[in-house]
Amino acid sequence: MKLLRVGTVGAERPALLDEEGVLRDLSGLVPDIDGTLLADDGKLARIRAAAAAGDLPALDATGLRTGPPVARIGKIVCIGLNYHDHARETGAPTPEEPIIFMKAPDTVVGPDDTVLVPRGSVKTDWEVELAVVIGRTARYLETDEQALAAVAGYAVAHDVSERAFQIERGGQWDKGKNCETFNPLGPWLVTADEVPDPQALGIRLWVNGDLKQDGTTAEQIFPVAEVVRYVSQFMTLYPGDVINTGTPAGVAMGRPEPKPYLRPGDVVELEIDGLGRQRQPLKAA
Amino acid sequence: MKLLRVGTVGAERPALLDEEGVLRDLSGLVPDIDGTLLADDGKLARIRAAAAAGDLPALDATGLRTGPPVARIGKIVCIGLNYHDHARETGAPTPEEPIIFMKAPDTVVGPDDTVLVPRGSVKTDWEVELAVVIGRTARYLETDEQALAAVAGYAVAHDVSERAFQIERGGQWDKGKNCETFNPLGPWLVTADEVPDPQALGIRLWVNGDLKQDGTTAEQIFPVAEVVRYVSQFMTLYPGDVINTGTPAGVAMGRPEPKPYLRPGDVVELEIDGLGRQRQPLKAA
Repeated sequence: MKLLRVGTVGAERPALLDEEGVLRDLSGLVPDIDGTLLADDGKLARIRAAAAAGDLPALDATGLRTGPPVARIGKIVCIGLNYHDHARETGAPTPEEPIIFMKAPDTVVGPDDTVLVPRGSVKTDWEVELAVVIGRTARYLETDEQALAAVAGYAVAHDVSERAFQIERGGQWDKGKNCETFNPLGPWLVTADEVPDPQALGIRLWVNGDLKQDGTTAEQIFPVAEVVRYVSQFMTLYPGDVINTGTPAGVAMGRPEPKPYLRPGDVVELEIDGLGRQRQPLKAA
Repeated sequence: MKLLRVGTVGAERPALLDEEGVLRDLSGLVPDIDGTLLADDGKLARIRAAAAAGDLPALDATGLRTGPPVARIGKIVCIGLNYHDHARETGAPTPEEPIIFMKAPDTVVGPDDTVLVPRGSVKTDWEVELAVVIGRTARYLETDEQALAAVAGYAVAHDVSERAFQIERGGQWDKGKNCETFNPLGPWLVTADEVPDPQALGIRLWVNGDLKQDGTTAEQIFPVAEVVRYVSQFMTLYPGDVINTGTPAGVAMGRPEPKPYLRPGDVVELEIDGLGRQRQPLKAA
Protein backbone atom coordinates (compact mmCIF):
# COMPACT_ATOMS: atom_id res chain seq x y z
CA MET A 1 0.00 0.00 0.00
CA LYS A 2 0.92 3.62 -0.55
CA LEU A 3 -0.05 5.49 2.61
CA LEU A 4 0.10 9.26 2.78
CA ARG A 5 -1.16 12.30 4.65
CA VAL A 6 -2.82 15.19 2.83
CA GLY A 7 -3.95 18.64 3.91
CA THR A 8 -2.57 21.79 5.45
CA VAL A 9 0.41 21.73 7.82
CA GLY A 10 -0.59 20.17 11.13
CA ALA A 11 -4.08 19.25 9.88
CA GLU A 12 -3.23 16.42 7.47
CA ARG A 13 -5.66 13.53 7.08
CA PRO A 14 -4.65 9.93 6.41
CA ALA A 15 -5.08 8.69 2.85
CA LEU A 16 -4.19 5.88 0.49
CA LEU A 17 -3.17 6.04 -3.13
CA ASP A 18 -4.83 3.04 -4.75
CA GLU A 19 -3.57 0.92 -7.63
CA GLU A 20 -5.43 3.05 -10.16
CA GLY A 21 -3.76 6.17 -8.78
CA VAL A 22 -6.93 7.39 -7.07
CA LEU A 23 -6.53 9.12 -3.71
CA ARG A 24 -8.70 7.46 -1.03
CA ASP A 25 -9.72 8.86 2.35
CA LEU A 26 -8.67 6.77 5.37
CA SER A 27 -9.98 9.13 8.03
CA GLY A 28 -13.07 6.99 8.56
CA LEU A 29 -10.86 4.03 9.44
CA VAL A 30 -7.86 5.45 11.31
CA PRO A 31 -7.12 8.79 13.01
CA ASP A 32 -3.68 9.18 11.43
CA ILE A 33 -0.67 7.39 10.00
CA ASP A 34 1.82 7.06 12.84
CA GLY A 35 3.72 4.52 14.90
CA THR A 36 0.55 3.31 16.59
CA LEU A 37 -1.00 2.38 13.25
CA LEU A 38 2.20 0.92 11.82
CA ALA A 39 2.49 -1.44 14.81
CA ASP A 40 -1.12 -2.59 14.43
CA ASP A 41 -1.36 -5.45 11.93
CA GLY A 42 -5.09 -5.71 12.42
CA LYS A 43 -5.72 -2.08 11.48
CA LEU A 44 -3.39 -2.33 8.49
CA ALA A 45 -5.26 -5.45 7.34
CA ARG A 46 -8.55 -3.61 7.65
CA ILE A 47 -7.23 -0.78 5.46
CA ARG A 48 -6.02 -3.32 2.93
CA ALA A 49 -9.38 -5.11 2.91
CA ALA A 50 -11.34 -1.87 2.57
CA ALA A 51 -9.14 -0.81 -0.35
CA ALA A 52 -9.56 -4.18 -2.07
CA ALA A 53 -13.33 -4.07 -1.56
CA GLY A 54 -13.56 -0.56 -3.01
CA ASP A 55 -15.00 0.74 0.26
CA LEU A 56 -12.78 3.80 0.63
CA PRO A 57 -14.21 7.16 -0.47
CA ALA A 58 -12.24 9.00 -3.16
CA LEU A 59 -10.63 12.31 -2.28
CA ASP A 60 -10.30 15.20 -4.70
CA ALA A 61 -6.52 15.63 -5.01
CA THR A 62 -6.79 19.01 -6.77
CA GLY A 63 -4.69 21.58 -4.97
CA LEU A 64 -4.26 19.29 -1.99
CA ARG A 65 -0.89 19.52 -0.23
CA THR A 66 0.92 16.30 0.62
CA GLY A 67 2.40 16.26 4.12
CA PRO A 68 5.01 13.89 5.51
CA PRO A 69 3.57 10.35 5.39
CA VAL A 70 4.19 9.66 9.09
CA ALA A 71 2.97 11.76 12.01
CA ARG A 72 4.62 11.94 15.45
CA ILE A 73 7.98 10.57 14.31
CA GLY A 74 9.93 9.70 17.45
CA LYS A 75 13.45 10.06 16.12
CA ILE A 76 15.37 10.14 12.87
CA VAL A 77 18.54 8.07 12.84
CA CYS A 78 20.86 8.81 9.93
CA ILE A 79 23.59 6.66 8.44
CA GLY A 80 26.59 8.59 7.13
CA LEU A 81 28.75 7.65 4.13
CA ASN A 82 26.73 4.51 3.36
CA TYR A 83 27.27 4.35 -0.40
CA HIS A 84 30.57 3.21 -1.89
CA ASP A 85 30.41 5.91 -4.58
CA HIS A 86 29.56 8.70 -2.08
CA ALA A 87 32.34 7.70 0.34
CA ARG A 88 34.77 7.89 -2.59
CA GLU A 89 33.61 11.35 -3.73
CA THR A 90 34.01 12.83 -0.24
CA GLY A 91 37.52 11.42 0.03
CA ALA A 92 36.55 9.53 3.20
CA PRO A 93 37.66 5.95 3.76
CA THR A 94 34.92 3.30 3.52
CA PRO A 95 33.46 3.04 7.05
CA GLU A 96 34.18 -0.22 8.86
CA GLU A 97 30.83 -0.01 10.60
CA PRO A 98 27.84 2.30 10.11
CA ILE A 99 28.27 5.96 11.10
CA ILE A 100 25.24 7.16 13.07
CA PHE A 101 24.01 10.69 13.56
CA MET A 102 20.63 12.15 14.49
CA LYS A 103 18.07 14.56 13.08
CA ALA A 104 15.22 16.01 15.13
CA PRO A 105 11.71 15.05 13.97
CA ASP A 106 10.82 18.75 13.78
CA THR A 107 13.00 19.03 10.65
CA VAL A 108 10.46 16.94 8.72
CA VAL A 109 8.28 18.65 6.13
CA GLY A 110 6.16 17.41 3.23
CA PRO A 111 7.74 16.25 -0.04
CA ASP A 112 6.84 19.41 -1.95
CA ASP A 113 7.19 21.95 0.85
CA THR A 114 9.68 24.81 0.77
CA VAL A 115 13.20 24.15 2.03
CA LEU A 116 14.81 27.10 3.79
CA VAL A 117 18.47 27.97 3.20
CA PRO A 118 19.67 28.91 6.72
CA ARG A 119 20.82 32.45 7.42
CA GLY A 120 24.55 32.67 6.94
CA SER A 121 24.63 29.46 4.90
CA VAL A 122 26.89 29.22 1.86
CA LYS A 123 27.11 25.41 1.71
CA THR A 124 23.57 24.04 1.73
CA ASP A 125 23.77 20.65 0.01
CA TRP A 126 21.35 17.99 -1.22
CA GLU A 127 21.20 14.27 -0.34
CA VAL A 128 18.51 11.93 -1.66
CA GLU A 129 18.04 8.97 0.68
CA LEU A 130 16.02 5.81 1.13
CA ALA A 131 14.12 6.24 4.42
CA VAL A 132 13.15 3.18 6.43
CA VAL A 133 10.07 3.57 8.65
CA ILE A 134 9.96 1.31 11.70
CA GLY A 135 6.83 -0.70 12.54
CA ARG A 136 8.05 -2.96 15.38
CA THR A 137 10.14 -2.18 18.44
CA ALA A 138 13.70 -3.21 17.57
CA ARG A 139 16.13 -3.84 20.43
CA TYR A 140 19.31 -5.91 20.20
CA LEU A 141 18.17 -7.71 17.06
CA GLU A 142 20.30 -10.65 16.00
CA THR A 143 19.34 -11.50 12.44
CA ASP A 144 18.54 -9.85 9.11
CA GLU A 145 15.12 -11.52 9.24
CA GLN A 146 14.30 -9.85 12.56
CA ALA A 147 15.56 -6.55 11.17
CA LEU A 148 13.42 -6.65 8.03
CA ALA A 149 10.40 -7.74 10.10
CA ALA A 150 10.77 -4.48 12.07
CA VAL A 151 10.41 -2.39 8.89
CA ALA A 152 6.92 -1.04 8.21
CA GLY A 153 7.84 0.52 4.90
CA TYR A 154 9.97 2.86 2.86
CA ALA A 155 9.87 6.46 1.68
CA VAL A 156 11.95 9.07 -0.10
CA ALA A 157 13.84 11.39 2.27
CA HIS A 158 15.85 14.50 1.52
CA ASP A 159 18.64 14.77 4.10
CA VAL A 160 19.40 18.43 3.46
CA SER A 161 22.81 19.31 4.91
CA GLU A 162 24.75 22.50 5.56
CA ARG A 163 28.37 21.47 5.04
CA ALA A 164 30.05 24.40 6.77
CA PHE A 165 27.81 23.94 9.83
CA GLN A 166 28.35 20.17 9.63
CA ILE A 167 32.11 20.06 9.23
CA GLU A 168 33.74 23.44 9.86
CA ARG A 169 31.99 24.57 13.05
CA GLY A 170 33.38 22.42 15.81
CA GLY A 171 33.09 18.72 15.82
CA GLN A 172 29.77 16.95 15.36
CA TRP A 173 27.76 16.68 12.14
CA ASP A 174 24.39 17.32 13.85
CA LYS A 175 24.99 21.09 13.71
CA GLY A 176 24.53 21.03 9.93
CA LYS A 177 21.72 18.50 9.82
CA ASN A 178 19.00 19.93 12.07
CA CYS A 179 18.11 23.25 10.44
CA GLU A 180 14.37 23.83 10.04
CA THR A 181 12.78 22.15 6.95
CA PHE A 182 15.91 20.01 6.43
CA ASN A 183 14.09 16.67 6.10
CA PRO A 184 11.41 16.54 3.39
CA LEU A 185 9.77 13.09 3.58
CA GLY A 186 7.35 11.32 1.23
CA PRO A 187 5.14 11.52 -0.77
CA TRP A 188 4.22 8.01 0.37
CA LEU A 189 5.04 5.40 2.92
CA VAL A 190 5.16 2.30 0.72
CA THR A 191 4.58 -0.78 2.87
CA ALA A 192 7.45 -3.25 2.96
CA ASP A 193 5.50 -6.00 1.17
CA GLU A 194 5.58 -3.83 -1.97
CA VAL A 195 9.36 -3.35 -1.85
CA PRO A 196 10.63 -6.91 -2.27
CA ASP A 197 14.28 -5.87 -2.56
CA PRO A 198 15.26 -2.55 -0.93
CA GLN A 199 18.78 -3.06 -2.35
CA ALA A 200 17.66 -2.78 -5.98
CA LEU A 201 16.14 0.68 -6.19
CA GLY A 202 17.21 3.44 -8.54
CA ILE A 203 17.63 6.71 -6.59
CA ARG A 204 17.93 10.10 -8.30
CA LEU A 205 18.04 13.83 -7.62
CA TRP A 206 17.89 16.87 -9.88
CA VAL A 207 18.72 20.52 -9.22
CA ASN A 208 16.94 22.96 -11.53
CA GLY A 209 16.29 20.05 -13.90
CA ASP A 210 19.92 18.81 -14.05
CA LEU A 211 20.41 15.23 -12.90
CA LYS A 212 22.92 15.39 -10.00
CA GLN A 213 22.55 12.03 -8.25
CA ASP A 214 21.79 8.91 -10.26
CA GLY A 215 22.50 5.87 -8.10
CA THR A 216 21.16 2.60 -6.87
CA THR A 217 20.67 1.24 -3.37
CA ALA A 218 22.77 -1.72 -4.55
CA GLU A 219 25.74 0.60 -3.80
CA GLN A 220 24.88 0.72 -0.07
CA ILE A 221 27.84 -0.40 2.01
CA PHE A 222 25.51 -1.56 4.80
CA PRO A 223 22.17 -2.74 3.43
CA VAL A 224 18.86 -1.95 5.12
CA ALA A 225 18.69 -5.18 7.14
CA GLU A 226 22.22 -4.70 8.46
CA VAL A 227 21.55 -1.03 9.27
CA VAL A 228 18.43 -1.83 11.30
CA ARG A 229 20.14 -4.71 13.11
CA TYR A 230 23.22 -2.61 13.82
CA VAL A 231 21.35 0.47 15.06
CA SER A 232 19.31 -1.74 17.42
CA GLN A 233 22.53 -2.60 19.31
CA PHE A 234 22.99 1.05 20.30
CA MET A 235 19.47 2.35 20.70
CA THR A 236 15.94 1.02 20.76
CA LEU A 237 13.93 1.69 17.61
CA TYR A 238 10.21 2.27 18.08
CA PRO A 239 7.27 2.20 15.65
CA GLY A 240 7.21 5.53 13.85
CA ASP A 241 10.97 6.04 14.01
CA VAL A 242 12.74 6.74 10.71
CA ILE A 243 16.20 5.76 9.48
CA ASN A 244 17.75 7.75 6.62
CA THR A 245 20.04 5.15 5.08
CA GLY A 246 22.58 7.42 3.38
CA THR A 247 23.03 9.11 0.02
CA PRO A 248 24.69 8.01 -3.23
CA ALA A 249 27.38 10.00 -5.05
CA GLY A 250 26.67 13.33 -6.66
CA VAL A 251 26.30 15.85 -3.83
CA ALA A 252 27.61 19.40 -4.21
CA MET A 253 30.41 18.78 -1.69
CA GLY A 254 31.86 16.07 -3.94
CA ARG A 255 32.24 18.35 -6.99
CA PRO A 256 35.10 20.56 -8.15
CA GLU A 257 35.30 24.19 -7.03
CA PRO A 258 33.27 26.29 -7.22
CA LYS A 259 30.95 23.71 -5.67
CA PRO A 260 27.33 24.23 -6.76
CA TYR A 261 25.70 24.61 -3.34
CA LEU A 262 21.99 25.40 -3.18
CA ARG A 263 20.68 28.96 -3.17
CA PRO A 264 17.25 30.52 -2.74
CA GLY A 265 15.37 30.15 -6.01
CA ASP A 266 16.75 26.69 -6.80
CA VAL A 267 14.39 23.76 -7.21
CA VAL A 268 15.34 20.24 -6.11
CA GLU A 269 13.54 17.12 -7.30
CA LEU A 270 14.09 13.64 -5.87
CA GLU A 271 12.86 10.19 -6.81
CA ILE A 272 13.29 6.56 -5.82
CA ASP A 273 11.91 3.69 -7.93
CA GLY A 274 8.41 2.86 -6.71
CA LEU A 275 8.48 5.38 -3.85
CA GLY A 276 7.43 8.52 -5.68
CA ARG A 277 8.86 11.95 -6.34
CA GLN A 278 9.51 15.13 -4.35
CA ARG A 279 9.92 18.73 -5.53
CA GLN A 280 11.10 21.52 -3.25
CA PRO A 281 11.65 25.18 -4.01
CA LEU A 282 14.42 26.78 -1.93
CA LYS A 283 13.93 30.08 -0.15
CA ALA A 284 15.94 32.16 2.28
CA ALA A 285 15.22 31.52 5.97
CA MET B 1 7.30 26.94 40.78
CA LYS B 2 8.44 23.35 40.95
CA LEU B 3 6.44 21.43 38.35
CA LEU B 4 6.62 17.67 38.13
CA ARG B 5 4.84 14.59 36.81
CA VAL B 6 4.03 11.67 39.11
CA GLY B 7 2.67 8.18 38.50
CA THR B 8 3.49 5.06 36.55
CA VAL B 9 5.39 5.19 33.27
CA GLY B 10 3.23 6.69 30.54
CA ALA B 11 0.42 7.55 32.98
CA GLU B 12 2.00 10.41 34.91
CA ARG B 13 -0.19 13.22 36.17
CA PRO B 14 0.89 16.87 36.47
CA ALA B 15 1.76 18.10 39.95
CA LEU B 16 3.36 20.95 41.82
CA LEU B 17 5.62 20.84 44.85
CA ASP B 18 4.58 23.81 46.96
CA GLU B 19 6.75 25.99 49.19
CA GLU B 20 5.99 23.82 52.21
CA GLY B 21 7.13 20.71 50.31
CA VAL B 22 3.58 19.40 49.87
CA LEU B 23 2.78 17.68 46.59
CA ARG B 24 -0.25 19.27 44.87
CA ASP B 25 -2.37 17.83 42.09
CA LEU B 26 -2.55 19.91 38.90
CA SER B 27 -4.67 17.51 36.88
CA GLY B 28 -7.81 19.56 37.52
CA LEU B 29 -6.14 22.58 35.91
CA VAL B 30 -3.99 21.22 33.08
CA PRO B 31 -3.83 17.91 31.21
CA ASP B 32 -0.04 17.60 31.43
CA ILE B 33 3.24 19.48 31.68
CA ASP B 34 4.50 19.86 28.15
CA GLY B 35 5.48 22.42 25.54
CA THR B 36 1.89 23.55 25.10
CA LEU B 37 1.62 24.45 28.79
CA LEU B 38 5.08 26.01 28.98
CA ALA B 39 4.21 28.35 26.08
CA ASP B 40 0.95 29.40 27.74
CA ASP B 41 1.56 32.28 30.15
CA GLY B 42 -2.13 32.43 31.06
CA LYS B 43 -2.25 28.80 32.14
CA LEU B 44 1.00 29.12 34.09
CA ALA B 45 -0.41 32.20 35.85
CA ARG B 46 -3.54 30.26 36.75
CA ILE B 47 -1.45 27.51 38.32
CA ARG B 48 0.53 30.09 40.24
CA ALA B 49 -2.64 31.79 41.48
CA ALA B 50 -4.26 28.50 42.50
CA ALA B 51 -1.12 27.52 44.42
CA ALA B 52 -0.99 30.90 46.19
CA ALA B 53 -4.67 30.68 47.08
CA GLY B 54 -4.27 27.17 48.49
CA ASP B 55 -6.77 25.82 45.97
CA LEU B 56 -4.73 22.80 44.81
CA PRO B 57 -5.60 19.42 46.35
CA ALA B 58 -2.75 17.65 48.14
CA LEU B 59 -1.46 14.37 46.71
CA ASP B 60 -0.20 11.51 48.83
CA ALA B 61 3.43 11.17 47.76
CA THR B 62 3.92 7.82 49.48
CA GLY B 63 5.27 5.28 47.04
CA LEU B 64 4.55 7.56 44.12
CA ARG B 65 7.04 7.40 41.25
CA THR B 66 8.34 10.66 39.82
CA GLY B 67 8.44 10.72 36.03
CA PRO B 68 10.32 13.15 33.80
CA PRO B 69 8.93 16.66 34.43
CA VAL B 70 8.16 17.35 30.77
CA ALA B 71 6.02 15.20 28.46
CA ARG B 72 6.31 15.04 24.67
CA ILE B 73 9.82 16.50 24.52
CA GLY B 74 10.48 17.40 20.89
CA LYS B 75 14.25 17.15 20.85
CA ILE B 76 17.21 17.13 23.19
CA VAL B 77 20.12 19.29 22.08
CA CYS B 78 23.36 18.62 23.95
CA ILE B 79 26.38 20.85 24.35
CA GLY B 80 29.70 18.99 24.48
CA LEU B 81 32.77 20.01 26.51
CA ASN B 82 31.09 23.10 27.97
CA TYR B 83 32.95 23.30 31.29
CA HIS B 84 36.55 24.52 31.48
CA ASP B 85 37.43 21.83 34.04
CA HIS B 86 35.80 19.01 32.00
CA ALA B 87 37.50 20.07 28.74
CA ARG B 88 40.82 19.96 30.58
CA GLU B 89 40.24 16.48 32.06
CA THR B 90 39.37 14.99 28.66
CA GLY B 91 42.52 16.48 27.12
CA ALA B 92 40.41 18.32 24.55
CA PRO B 93 41.14 21.94 23.63
CA THR B 94 38.63 24.51 24.87
CA PRO B 95 35.99 24.72 22.11
CA GLU B 96 35.92 27.98 20.17
CA GLU B 97 32.18 27.69 19.75
CA PRO B 98 29.62 25.30 21.28
CA ILE B 99 29.76 21.65 20.20
CA ILE B 100 26.27 20.36 19.44
CA PHE B 101 25.03 16.79 19.42
CA MET B 102 21.58 15.24 19.77
CA LYS B 103 19.76 12.78 22.00
CA ALA B 104 16.41 11.25 21.11
CA PRO B 105 13.52 12.13 23.47
CA ASP B 106 12.86 8.40 23.96
CA THR B 107 16.04 8.19 26.08
CA VAL B 108 14.31 10.22 28.81
CA VAL B 109 13.26 8.47 32.03
CA GLY B 110 12.31 9.68 35.48
CA PRO B 111 14.93 10.91 37.97
CA ASP B 112 14.87 7.72 40.06
CA ASP B 113 14.26 5.17 37.30
CA THR B 114 16.67 2.38 36.48
CA VAL B 115 19.48 3.13 34.02
CA LEU B 116 20.41 0.21 31.78
CA VAL B 117 24.04 -0.56 31.00
CA PRO B 118 23.91 -1.48 27.30
CA ARG B 119 24.83 -5.00 26.21
CA GLY B 120 28.49 -5.14 25.30
CA SER B 121 29.24 -1.91 27.19
CA VAL B 122 32.42 -1.60 29.21
CA LYS B 123 32.58 2.22 29.27
CA THR B 124 29.23 3.50 30.55
CA ASP B 125 29.95 6.91 32.10
CA TRP B 126 28.08 9.51 34.14
CA GLU B 127 27.52 13.22 33.37
CA VAL B 128 25.43 15.49 35.59
CA GLU B 129 24.07 18.44 33.59
CA LEU B 130 21.95 21.53 33.91
CA ALA B 131 19.00 21.05 31.54
CA VAL B 132 17.29 24.06 30.03
CA VAL B 133 13.62 23.59 29.08
CA ILE B 134 12.37 25.83 26.27
CA GLY B 135 9.10 27.76 26.63
CA ARG B 136 9.15 30.03 23.55
CA THR B 137 10.00 29.28 19.95
CA ALA B 138 13.61 30.40 19.48
CA ARG B 139 14.82 31.09 15.95
CA TYR B 140 17.82 33.24 15.01
CA LEU B 141 17.83 35.03 18.36
CA GLU B 142 20.13 38.03 18.58
CA THR B 143 20.51 38.87 22.25
CA ASP B 144 21.01 37.23 25.63
CA GLU B 145 17.73 38.79 26.77
CA GLN B 146 15.82 37.10 23.95
CA ALA B 147 17.56 33.83 24.78
CA LEU B 148 16.70 33.90 28.48
CA ALA B 149 13.12 34.89 27.65
CA ALA B 150 12.84 31.63 25.67
CA VAL B 151 13.71 29.55 28.74
CA ALA B 152 10.72 28.12 30.65
CA GLY B 153 12.84 26.61 33.40
CA TYR B 154 15.61 24.32 34.51
CA ALA B 155 16.03 20.73 35.62
CA VAL B 156 18.69 18.18 36.52
CA ALA B 157 19.65 15.90 33.63
CA HIS B 158 21.87 12.84 33.58
CA ASP B 159 23.56 12.64 30.16
CA VAL B 160 24.59 8.98 30.47
CA SER B 161 27.27 8.20 27.89
CA GLU B 162 28.92 5.06 26.57
CA ARG B 163 32.45 6.18 25.74
CA ALA B 164 33.46 3.26 23.51
CA PHE B 165 30.26 3.66 21.46
CA GLN B 166 30.74 7.46 21.47
CA ILE B 167 34.37 7.67 20.48
CA GLU B 168 35.76 4.33 19.28
CA ARG B 169 33.01 3.12 16.94
CA GLY B 170 33.26 5.29 13.88
CA GLY B 171 32.86 8.97 13.99
CA GLN B 172 29.91 10.67 15.63
CA TRP B 173 29.17 10.91 19.38
CA ASP B 174 25.44 10.17 18.99
CA LYS B 175 26.15 6.42 18.89
CA GLY B 176 27.09 6.48 22.58
CA LYS B 177 24.43 8.96 23.70
CA ASN B 178 21.14 7.44 22.59
CA CYS B 179 20.98 4.11 24.41
CA GLU B 180 17.65 3.44 26.15
CA THR B 181 17.25 5.10 29.60
CA PHE B 182 20.30 7.31 28.95
CA ASN B 183 18.62 10.59 29.94
CA PRO B 184 17.12 10.68 33.45
CA LEU B 185 15.42 14.09 33.87
CA GLY B 186 13.98 15.79 36.94
CA PRO B 187 12.65 15.57 39.59
CA TRP B 188 11.28 19.04 38.88
CA LEU B 189 11.06 21.65 36.22
CA VAL B 190 11.88 24.77 38.24
CA THR B 191 10.49 27.81 36.47
CA ALA B 192 13.07 30.37 35.36
CA ASP B 193 11.83 33.08 37.75
CA GLU B 194 13.09 30.93 40.64
CA VAL B 195 16.58 30.56 39.14
CA PRO B 196 17.82 34.15 39.09
CA ASP B 197 21.37 33.19 38.04
CA PRO B 198 21.78 29.90 36.16
CA GLN B 199 25.55 30.49 36.20
CA ALA B 200 25.83 30.21 39.99
CA LEU B 201 24.58 26.70 40.71
CA GLY B 202 26.50 23.97 42.51
CA ILE B 203 26.28 20.72 40.53
CA ARG B 204 27.25 17.36 42.01
CA LEU B 205 27.20 13.62 41.31
CA TRP B 206 27.94 10.59 43.46
CA VAL B 207 28.58 6.96 42.53
CA ASN B 208 27.84 4.50 45.32
CA GLY B 209 28.03 7.38 47.78
CA ASP B 210 31.41 8.73 46.60
CA LEU B 211 31.36 12.31 45.36
CA LYS B 212 32.65 12.19 41.76
CA GLN B 213 31.59 15.53 40.28
CA ASP B 214 31.52 18.66 42.42
CA GLY B 215 31.33 21.69 40.18
CA THR B 216 29.56 24.92 39.53
CA THR B 217 27.78 26.25 36.46
CA ALA B 218 30.11 29.27 36.80
CA GLU B 219 32.65 27.02 35.02
CA GLN B 220 30.52 26.87 31.86
CA ILE B 221 32.49 28.05 28.84
CA PHE B 222 29.28 29.12 27.09
CA PRO B 223 26.62 30.23 29.60
CA VAL B 224 22.95 29.35 29.21
CA ALA B 225 22.00 32.57 27.40
CA GLU B 226 24.82 32.16 24.89
CA VAL B 227 23.98 28.47 24.37
CA VAL B 228 20.31 29.19 23.60
CA ARG B 229 21.19 32.11 21.31
CA TYR B 230 23.85 30.06 19.52
CA VAL B 231 21.73 26.94 19.03
CA SER B 232 18.93 29.07 17.59
CA GLN B 233 21.22 30.02 14.67
CA PHE B 234 21.39 26.37 13.55
CA MET B 235 18.00 24.97 14.44
CA THR B 236 14.65 26.20 15.67
CA LEU B 237 13.93 25.50 19.33
CA TYR B 238 10.32 24.85 20.23
CA PRO B 239 8.45 24.84 23.57
CA GLY B 240 9.14 21.52 25.26
CA ASP B 241 12.60 21.11 23.74
CA VAL B 242 15.45 20.47 26.16
CA ILE B 243 19.09 21.56 26.07
CA ASN B 244 21.62 19.62 28.16
CA THR B 245 24.25 22.28 28.77
CA GLY B 246 27.28 20.09 29.44
CA THR B 247 28.97 18.43 32.40
CA PRO B 248 31.67 19.58 34.85
CA ALA B 249 34.88 17.67 35.55
CA GLY B 250 34.89 14.33 37.30
CA VAL B 251 33.60 11.80 34.78
CA ALA B 252 35.04 8.27 34.66
CA MET B 253 36.71 8.96 31.29
CA GLY B 254 38.81 11.72 32.88
CA ARG B 255 40.32 9.46 35.57
CA PRO B 256 43.46 7.34 35.58
CA GLU B 257 43.34 3.68 34.47
CA PRO B 258 41.58 1.56 35.39
CA LYS B 259 38.78 4.05 34.79
CA PRO B 260 35.82 3.46 37.10
CA TYR B 261 33.07 3.02 34.51
CA LEU B 262 29.57 2.14 35.70
CA ARG B 263 28.45 -1.45 36.16
CA PRO B 264 25.14 -3.11 36.98
CA GLY B 265 24.56 -2.77 40.72
CA ASP B 266 26.03 0.72 40.97
CA VAL B 267 23.91 3.61 42.21
CA VAL B 268 24.30 7.14 40.85
CA GLU B 269 22.98 10.22 42.63
CA LEU B 270 22.88 13.69 41.11
CA GLU B 271 22.00 17.12 42.43
CA ILE B 272 21.94 20.76 41.37
CA ASP B 273 21.34 23.60 43.86
CA GLY B 274 17.62 24.32 44.00
CA LEU B 275 16.71 21.81 41.28
CA GLY B 276 16.49 18.64 43.36
CA ARG B 277 18.13 15.27 43.44
CA GLN B 278 18.11 12.08 41.34
CA ARG B 279 19.02 8.51 42.30
CA GLN B 280 19.36 5.74 39.72
CA PRO B 281 20.25 2.09 40.21
CA LEU B 282 22.11 0.56 37.27
CA LYS B 283 21.08 -2.76 35.77
CA ALA B 284 22.13 -4.80 32.77
CA ALA B 285 20.13 -4.18 29.59
